[in-house]
Amino acid sequence: MQIGLVKGSLWATRKAEHLSGLKFLIVEIKDPITKITSSVVAADIIGAGLDDNVLITTGSAARVALENPEIPIDATIIGIIDSVELNKS
Amino acid sequence: MQIGLVKGSLWATRKAEHLSGLKFLIVEIKDPITKITSSVVAADIIGAGLDDNVLITTGSAARVALENPEIPIDATIIGIIDSVELNKS
Amino acid sequence: MQIGLVKGSLWATRKAEHLSGLKFLIVEIKDPITKITSSVVAADIIGAGLDDNVLITTGSAARVALENPEIPIDATIIGIIDSVELNKS
Amino acid sequence: MQIGLVKGSLWATRKAEHLSGLKFLIVEIKDPITKITSSVVAADIIGAGLDDNVLITTGSAARVALENPEIPIDATIIGIIDSVELNKS
Amino acid sequence: MQIGLVKGSLWATRKAEHLSGLKFLIVEIKDPITKITSSVVAADIIGAGLDDNVLITTGSAARVALENPEIPIDATIIGIIDSVELNKS
Repeated sequence: MQIGLVKGSLWATRKAEHLSGLKFLIVEIKDPITKITSSVVAADIIGAGLDDNVLITTGSAARVALENPEIPIDATIIGIIDSVELNKS
Repeated sequence: MQIGLVKGSLWATRKAEHLSGLKFLIVEIKDPITKITSSVVAADIIGAGLDDNVLITTGSAARVALENPEIPIDATIIGIIDSVELNKS
Repeated sequence: MQIGLVKGSLWATRKAEHLSGLKFLIVEIKDPITKITSSVVAADIIGAGLDDNVLITTGSAARVALENPEIPIDATIIGIIDSVELNKS
Repeated sequence: MQIGLVKGSLWATRKAEHLSGLKFLIVEIKDPITKITSSVVAADIIGAGLDDNVLITTGSAARVALENPEIPIDATIIGIIDSVELNKS
Repeated sequence: MQIGLVKGSLWATRKAEHLSGLKFLIVEIKDPITKITSSVVAADIIGAGLDDNVLITTGSAARVALENPEIPIDATIIGIIDSVELNKS
């Protein structure tokens, strides 16, 4: 999984049928060790909001998180992170 | 998922049987935060056109979007983006 | 999917049982927008040849293209490209 | 699979239902040949701890490792590495 | 698939149950066109050895190669390469 920071939202009226009602958030993926960043659009099932640190799952696991194999997504927010403990050595 | 901009089209007469009738668009994937770009060929089921901002799903989700597990594609346009709201801080 | 150029072939006598009879081509993946290249070994089911521009599918879709879920491949040529139209703006 | 070094832990109270009881470790993936590093959050089923060298599997294999296809994870620690032998030539 | 060179081995006593008896080799993936390298740990079912040039499959195909969907691996050696023919133009 990846650690990300919610940075925004995305709306699309014309979309695949099974996506209706889903919330799409733009998440900045920040590697806690290399600090390299990228971003992804993820479906949110936890109720995450702007500036929340979140846990993202990708690939077929994203559909498993929604418990509906017919929803054509490849990234889902599966947790809001309380804390991270990292050994700096 | 990824955010992309439709930049062109692709045609292939000699192709796998289950691809007949599918429209293939060339999409520039533009990371809204890092601005890094790459491109992908995606099947279109929404009716997207040149210069449309689109939402792309990849991997096995691409076949799920077409509701036909026998179509051998790995990227599909699943939405035409109305708007994106991004927190610049 | 990705756009590639067939650059060569590969032979392996000692290989997984279900691969017998398959043709393996070495394809240079060329991103039509960023021009970044990489290469992949892909199974060919279309009859592509040296210097053909081809369409490649990867992941589980590669097995779907062969219509045999037991063939352990992760990249397949699914089309020979006739033409590409790209908006340069 | 990838070779990684356990560098820390992550906690999330608000999370997808099926994740309850799972331990999440932050693993630095270190390519033994190119030395390029990245990091991933992986579920641990082996009892790995800080500074353990571990073997990570990703994608749908991560769920297979937990023997429960409903757990929406995409990376799992599947072994604690005893030793690596690498030909430096 | 990818072309790789077997560079070493890896042992892990404490590991996921279904991995018992599997041989893990460290393979340097060398892109024959861009020469970019990375490495991966792959299960071996062909009997490959040090300095063998091998063909690697990844993702869910890696489990298909072992003909056992319960083995949680994401990379498998599926062939020992006899020869590669590459058009240098």
